[in-house]
Amino acid sequence: MRDFSSDHRWLSINTATVRRQHGRDWCLLDILDACAARGIRAVSPWRDQVAAAGLTNVATRLKTHGIELSGYCRGGMFTYADEAGRQQVRDDNLRALDEACTLEAPCLVLVVGGLPGALAGRPAHHDIAGAREQVREGIAWLLEQARARRMPLAIEPLHPMYAADRACINTLAQALDLCDALDPSRSGALGVAVDCYHVWWDPLLQQQVARAGRERLLAFHVCDWLVPTSDLLEDRGMMGDGIIELPKIRGWVEAAGFGGYSEVEIFSRANWWQRDGGETLDVCIERHCRSV
Amino acid sequence: MRDFSSDHRWLSINTATVRRQHGRDWCLLDILDACAARGIRAVSPWRDQVAAAGLTNVATRLKTHGIELSGYCRGGMFTYADEAGRQQVRDDNLRALDEACTLEAPCLVLVVGGLPGALAGRPAHHDIAGAREQVREGIAWLLEQARARRMPLAIEPLHPMYAADRACINTLAQALDLCDALDPSRSGALGVAVDCYHVWWDPLLQQQVARAGRERLLAFHVCDWLVPTSDLLEDRGMMGDGIIELPKIRGWVEAAGFGGYSEVEIFSRANWWQRDGGETLDVCIERHCRSV
Repeated sequence: MRDFSSDHRWLSINTATVRRQHGRDWCLLDILDACAARGIRAVSPWRDQVAAAGLTNVATRLKTHGIELSGYCRGGMFTYADEAGRQQVRDDNLRALDEACTLEAPCLVLVVGGLPGALAGRPAHHDIAGAREQVREGIAWLLEQARARRMPLAIEPLHPMYAADRACINTLAQALDLCDALDPSRSGALGVAVDCYHVWWDPLLQQQVARAGRERLLAFHVCDWLVPTSDLLEDRGMMGDGIIELPKIRGWVEAAGFGGYSEVEIFSRANWWQRDGGETLDVCIERHCRSV
Repeated sequence: MRDFSSDHRWLSINTATVRRQHGRDWCLLDILDACAARGIRAVSPWRDQVAAAGLTNVATRLKTHGIELSGYCRGGMFTYADEAGRQQVRDDNLRALDEACTLEAPCLVLVVGGLPGALAGRPAHHDIAGAREQVREGIAWLLEQARARRMPLAIEPLHPMYAADRACINTLAQALDLCDALDPSRSGALGVAVDCYHVWWDPLLQQQVARAGRERLLAFHVCDWLVPTSDLLEDRGMMGDGIIELPKIRGWVEAAGFGGYSEVEIFSRANWWQRDGGETLDVCIERHCRSV
């Protein structure tokens, strides 16, 4: 297992972590400058942040600083209620793929979607098995497009508390079953993003991480589960402030062959998004060395 | 599958559903009167409500009304930080067992506990595998006591969002593995409580319900998952107001041999606990017939 204690060469910042500072949006270009100033070598930006700053501007700034991506957030949201929705999903995912290529991401992360319309509070139906079937079809279709672009897809299983509205792939086993069905040769074109926040509770986690192996482990995300947690979405904790055994899980992931970045992704409306972004980055560096 | 549409003979009220009305505690004895007045044949009371009303008073009132129990809530919370804590857990579970016997419950429901101290916001450690081992030992010990009293134990897997602080048994498969280990002969002394709120998201649910079978299916709980859900604990929905496919799941449970009560358990600080308890019971009856 790699020693993270003395430097932060394997730290990546998911830019949602500092998307807001003092409660206001922080421009992605300024975030990149702040990362570069701290010797942070990798980021994973969100599409809306890229769009707000301009795709070309972001690509140029990344090159200027020599910052690479640990992933691109995100494609997916494959479920739909009608034919127009289906086409919209495909168009949007193609754009996400192309952006990932422009930014030379190592993978496009997929948050697969829940019941169509549920995120807006108006689910079109309650058939989660049907939603899962749409997800399977959506990934199968996107995989062909992604192979042509040599852009790996990373399915991110989300915590079961998001099954209704954000992602109906909720365990690592379920994601890996899908990978095995769609990419049986383990070609490297399809794998998973293991976010400790979503999977830490799973009694099968160690076993499934081993099953995934190097070919399927495309990204590794960290933050912490706070006790108590006050909000289902935006109360994630800084590493070391909660109860997830991050070093243990990182040990499993590395034993399975993963040697990439440890990406910090924290949504924290009441705490970290209220602070200065530079301060948050400094604490990410410190905790990366001490608690991951 | 039984027809629930024309009467509510298979409705049970978990009394937490009406533990508060107009934001104030509603006495369990009055709850029992209100249930009897509506022809509700079964309830599942919580220990704190029983203690507040007096165990003997509750037993008498149940007999007066001819109301039976669909379960007793609850034993468990098996995890501990030191030897004193271990003894406390055992003493408390013995009391719960004896109360369940006095009330002639068909089973004692077990919410197994998370990291010791986490519910109070001060986890003694972060070792969830260790907590799971304590749970296993705790249930093994309690099972001997329960067998002597002929009181079945029902392990209730809780939603993974409660893994840290309330229950580290989080899937039906995990609960059934424990049952198979501790009661391989499927004697009826150990089984599960299937609460749709906790398990609806599980892609293995249908398969594991079938695996459980009649001997292991000791209780069936319903409510609904609201979209959006505003609170991790106290924002459960009335059946029909959310996205859980309750009739589908009940079909699976009945196909596996379950023929008992459908127990409504709703924690709802901002909605149902603010209403009149009688109104809530009326809506439970209506939705039992229409949405379960």
